Amino acid sequence: MNFASDNTSGVHPRIMAALAEASAGHSPAYGTDELTAQATAAVRELFESPEAEVWLVAGGTAANALSLSAISLSWGKIFCANTAHVLTSECGAIPFYTGGATLVPISTTDGRITPEALGRRLHDMSRKDVHAGERTALTLTNSTELGTIYTPDAVAALSAKARAAGMAVHMDGARFANAVAALGCTPAELTHRAGVDVLSFGGTKNGAMMLEAVVVFDPARARGLDMRRMRAGHLMSKHRYLAAQMLALLQDGLWLELAGHANAMAARLAAGLREAEVTLHHPVEANQLFPTLTAAAHARARAAGARYHLWPQVQSEEGDVSVRLVCGWSTSEAEVDGLVEVLRG
Amino acid sequence: MNFASDNTSGVHPRIMAALAEASAGHSPAYGTDELTAQATAAVRELFESPEAEVWLVAGGTAANALSLSAISLSWGKIFCANTAHVLTSECGAIPFYTGGATLVPISTTDGRITPEALGRRLHDMSRKDVHAGERTALTLTNSTELGTIYTPDAVAALSAKARAAGMAVHMDGARFANAVAALGCTPAELTHRAGVDVLSFGGTKNGAMMLEAVVVFDPARARGLDMRRMRAGHLMSKHRYLAAQMLALLQDGLWLELAGHANAMAARLAAGLREAEVTLHHPVEANQLFPTLTAAAHARARAAGARYHLWPQVQSEEGDVSVRLVCGWSTSEAEVDGLVEVLRG
Amino acid sequence: MNFASDNTSGVHPRIMAALAEASAGHSPAYGTDELTAQATAAVRELFESPEAEVWLVAGGTAANALSLSAISLSWGKIFCANTAHVLTSECGAIPFYTGGATLVPISTTDGRITPEALGRRLHDMSRKDVHAGERTALTLTNSTELGTIYTPDAVAALSAKARAAGMAVHMDGARFANAVAALGCTPAELTHRAGVDVLSFGGTKNGAMMLEAVVVFDPARARGLDMRRMRAGHLMSKHRYLAAQMLALLQDGLWLELAGHANAMAARLAAGLREAEVTLHHPVEANQLFPTLTAAAHARARAAGARYHLWPQVQSEEGDVSVRLVCGWSTSEAEVDGLVEVLRG
Amino acid sequence: MNFASDNTSGVHPRIMAALAEASAGHSPAYGTDELTAQATAAVRELFESPEAEVWLVAGGTAANALSLSAISLSWGKIFCANTAHVLTSECGAIPFYTGGATLVPISTTDGRITPEALGRRLHDMSRKDVHAGERTALTLTNSTELGTIYTPDAVAALSAKARAAGMAVHMDGARFANAVAALGCTPAELTHRAGVDVLSFGGTKNGAMMLEAVVVFDPARARGLDMRRMRAGHLMSKHRYLAAQMLALLQDGLWLELAGHANAMAARLAAGLREAEVTLHHPVEANQLFPTLTAAAHARARAAGARYHLWPQVQSEEGDVSVRLVCGWSTSEAEVDGLVEVLRG
Repeated sequence: MNFASDNTSGVHPRIMAALAEASAGHSPAYGTDELTAQATAAVRELFESPEAEVWLVAGGTAANALSLSAISLSWGKIFCANTAHVLTSECGAIPFYTGGATLVPISTTDGRITPEALGRRLHDMSRKDVHAGERTALTLTNSTELGTIYTPDAVAALSAKARAAGMAVHMDGARFANAVAALGCTPAELTHRAGVDVLSFGGTKNGAMMLEAVVVFDPARARGLDMRRMRAGHLMSKHRYLAAQMLALLQDGLWLELAGHANAMAARLAAGLREAEVTLHHPVEANQLFPTLTAAAHARARAAGARYHLWPQVQSEEGDVSVRLVCGWSTSEAEVDGLVEVLRG
Repeated sequence: MNFASDNTSGVHPRIMAALAEASAGHSPAYGTDELTAQATAAVRELFESPEAEVWLVAGGTAANALSLSAISLSWGKIFCANTAHVLTSECGAIPFYTGGATLVPISTTDGRITPEALGRRLHDMSRKDVHAGERTALTLTNSTELGTIYTPDAVAALSAKARAAGMAVHMDGARFANAVAALGCTPAELTHRAGVDVLSFGGTKNGAMMLEAVVVFDPARARGLDMRRMRAGHLMSKHRYLAAQMLALLQDGLWLELAGHANAMAARLAAGLREAEVTLHHPVEANQLFPTLTAAAHARARAAGARYHLWPQVQSEEGDVSVRLVCGWSTSEAEVDGLVEVLRG
Repeated sequence: MNFASDNTSGVHPRIMAALAEASAGHSPAYGTDELTAQATAAVRELFESPEAEVWLVAGGTAANALSLSAISLSWGKIFCANTAHVLTSECGAIPFYTGGATLVPISTTDGRITPEALGRRLHDMSRKDVHAGERTALTLTNSTELGTIYTPDAVAALSAKARAAGMAVHMDGARFANAVAALGCTPAELTHRAGVDVLSFGGTKNGAMMLEAVVVFDPARARGLDMRRMRAGHLMSKHRYLAAQMLALLQDGLWLELAGHANAMAARLAAGLREAEVTLHHPVEANQLFPTLTAAAHARARAAGARYHLWPQVQSEEGDVSVRLVCGWSTSEAEVDGLVEVLRG
Repeated sequence: MNFASDNTSGVHPRIMAALAEASAGHSPAYGTDELTAQATAAVRELFESPEAEVWLVAGGTAANALSLSAISLSWGKIFCANTAHVLTSECGAIPFYTGGATLVPISTTDGRITPEALGRRLHDMSRKDVHAGERTALTLTNSTELGTIYTPDAVAALSAKARAAGMAVHMDGARFANAVAALGCTPAELTHRAGVDVLSFGGTKNGAMMLEAVVVFDPARARGLDMRRMRAGHLMSKHRYLAAQMLALLQDGLWLELAGHANAMAARLAAGLREAEVTLHHPVEANQLFPTLTAAAHARARAAGARYHLWPQVQSEEGDVSVRLVCGWSTSEAEVDGLVEVLRG
């Protein structure tokens, strides 16, 4: 019963098979190989964006930091949710990669930035002089760190405000698949058609081993990603093994199937918890849940070997505890039902 | 009637005379001259800190950014007031100089961080792992950006909390003289005896031309300032002209006299405004005032040629306006009384 | 007949099998898993260095840049061969990661820095003032970019000079296995016993998929690698897949077996070329050869589908061409003999 | 008898007077004042470049580092003389300000890069891929660090090569006045008409207190200097004191008069030394000389209180010593003749 994160799961067998298959013979290094060309084409097709730049990397922090460094000046202000992974959990990767840009946190409703909140913050920060710096980018996480989702309309409303302020828009899509699976929209509708310039398209949390793609829909807005990726040490020499993961993930819609499964397990878990009268915070729209557990329930779960993180992570384990439960591609109905049973007591 | 800032004033005649006097003959460059040795000794004596490192620079942003880069790791978190100059008005100098440290804003009461507010923020940020980064420094502005003052006890209480969290303490003393003049304490009491490791000791706003000093009370906590200053282009070749300003400023207590005058003018202005029933925000403890003016009063003042900034700077000039009034070493009673008269209408 | 590089080869079957095996079930993320603990222990044992820090990453540029950022100040001078990969082929990763350190190139003999050349360069750069900056590190590539090897004695002689100048020593061991296999010494003898503080221990070129380890023999000399790795986006969430590669590589000496094979193929190729009267530059001591081919031989080889790079890479393909031939773990005798035959004409 | 450097001299009386005069009354801060507008206009007129951006700063390292950061990408290669101040004497300011660009040294003839040497180095570095990075800028010092001068034609020849390689051109003009005074050309002829995009226009070594200007002839090639200057702490709040220096320097050609005097003193010194059969290295074209002194002559000069630096600075003071002698605006004929006499023995 592991609900700690979607990155505690293994690699999906079809992806592992693709890696093994990719291993035959020699292949040009550093992304000049045939599989990479195919993966690029597949991502472009998926996003209906034939001109998009596609940069594969092995990790999500790299994808985010490279993306933002390509759209923000070094003295820029990048607006983000105060719950954003780039702000809370990447150890300063964004100022490091951008050469000093500042993340400007915005209070959220269930992990989502509202147009009103963005508007207020943009207004507060609208001083235009050398002292204040420049507003350069907005980054949205979708699905969010609190398990909620921005619809294409919501993204478009926020992007419009960002654009009006002269800013570019990035989407942290570590769990983009979960958002698309939940919404039933197309990847294009949730990104460039809604005003997103650059996407971190996540694979690792969705069955891959190490795989994310920086997808640049408007290459005119993002410069130097080839050089940035290399000098950051994120251009893998045996690049075919990134490409093979992407191809397997996109093959026959595996990526959506896995994310849909994770979402379904989360919905099942939410239903079970509600029935067990466990308090749930935030709507459960993707694959994460945020319940508060009684001390007794928490103790029973730990005793039963259930794994999950306290959330927020700075919290005593005594008394009621708030936790995060994450379902992944490999979460089973049995695990879900088992946890509900344990928590119900 | 110029109340825009204390850096709109000129250079005090004694400082100008010292510059002219310093100009005779040749002098070794880059701080190896005799005047610099004297200025260093004078600062050490003033602060009763014979081991202190003293690094003269020409500007306040440089002093702050160099100071913080010497006490914070690149992935550090630096706690500051949400009104702090380093956060709002230095165009990202802190992340640039530190190589990526993040400023963590704390809500203030009248521009002052309270121990409770600091405690809460430290607790929120107490996660200790590679994702969250490290808490490295606290920076306090004294006197504050809102014209209030931290007492030695207040500084000590905050420093103790910072120290307990493993952090170093910096003081942005662009208006340090105004704080000392108001408190009647010694410079030592307000700094190293209250737990401050590094001070930006301001001169420019207090009658100098271009002069600040980074004073490192505990050299073990701040490394590489000699190299940092040079590679940032802040080691002036004709260094004697920085030293001459410092010597003139400290000579016969000129620095305190000028700051005391500015404070007195602010107090006189506050009294006049209160009498005129102008609303004043924040206690007037140093040389800055934050009144709200009626549209009519604002219009009269502008018509009379009075200069000041709207505060916050993002604000319409229609209807009531909130403004900042700053008194300096050259502000005269006549100017103060003139402004009061105009505002009274 | 692919001799382009050792990173054009695939993943060794035993390593691929280990990856598949590692995939069962859940595992804690970000390096807190059991396989990572085992891999760390295995590396420490291999190097007879029980206190060593071991940081796994996915690529060699990351390993080098992280290593050097942990031992060099931002204003430091890092001495390297003028053929060093960190200088010629990492797109500025070193200044990026170090926050501005400067690589100081040293002329080499067959890709090796001699003690005399290092001594001269250290002397030239021995100015000690804020203008010149500080000498902070020496980095040696072993085996070198020109296919030669530093013996333990050679490393010790260079390290001693570096140490005397107050510098730390890094070894770029992208092809460390080839050096050890050729020398028959122990890994400890070629590293910490010869004065090396930090090693980039390469796996990718030696049969792994994406795997390098930063091995810090003297943790007191290298600070913050945990934070540095994370903020650079090089802490992989599914870290077990790095660990599994390392374990498989070290299991039963596979790493030495593969490197030894590559060396043997290079020796066979060298013998064949000499017999065919092809000019070889530099001693062939590891797995790389640098012949000059006649235009006719080059044309025949290209026509036969042989792959290799011109070396130096800025060179006309007309007339005689100088090339680099690299043998890897998967290079076969048939390939070697085939190439010799084609080149002989 | 001080020949140590042109920055050991004081401030010219007319400049000091201008500073005193500028001090009357209040003046808007941060470069929004009237004197700054006048200084900008004066620089534009001097350079016959009405669209030029003019950014005043207090020091030469700042001017160079800001200039290069505005024209070079972070992963760029900046070509410079191996004697260049930016390379040897700025403590890594260039990689710091650029976020990691690499200085590529070129061997010189008498401190001058020749078109042939530049061509060879450009060719060597012409690899165009993500490993090698990008060639972004050429920086030329004029007059050079070895006291020689590039003519407009020489600058144009080098600029043309740089431009053909896609690079921008910067001139480090810490001693630009000495070059113009020696050549008798116009400032425009030696800069933008010869292909220079950005100039560091020095004042400090030529009689000012602290003053340099970054002059951007082609604003399209250099971005963000307003922000870059501020975030580096180089926007002086009492900016009028920079402007006043510039105005006084340009008034009635004072800048050329002072530089011409320094050059004349150097010529006189050269003539005296030649007559005294002292060996002079490099043509004496501006205000610096590089003689080799016998041990006896050196001892006599030291005993007589003459000041100068050994050059190169890493050198024993025993036996013959090579030194640098610099004449400045305040060097007198008596000092020159006195030194010659002492050295003649």
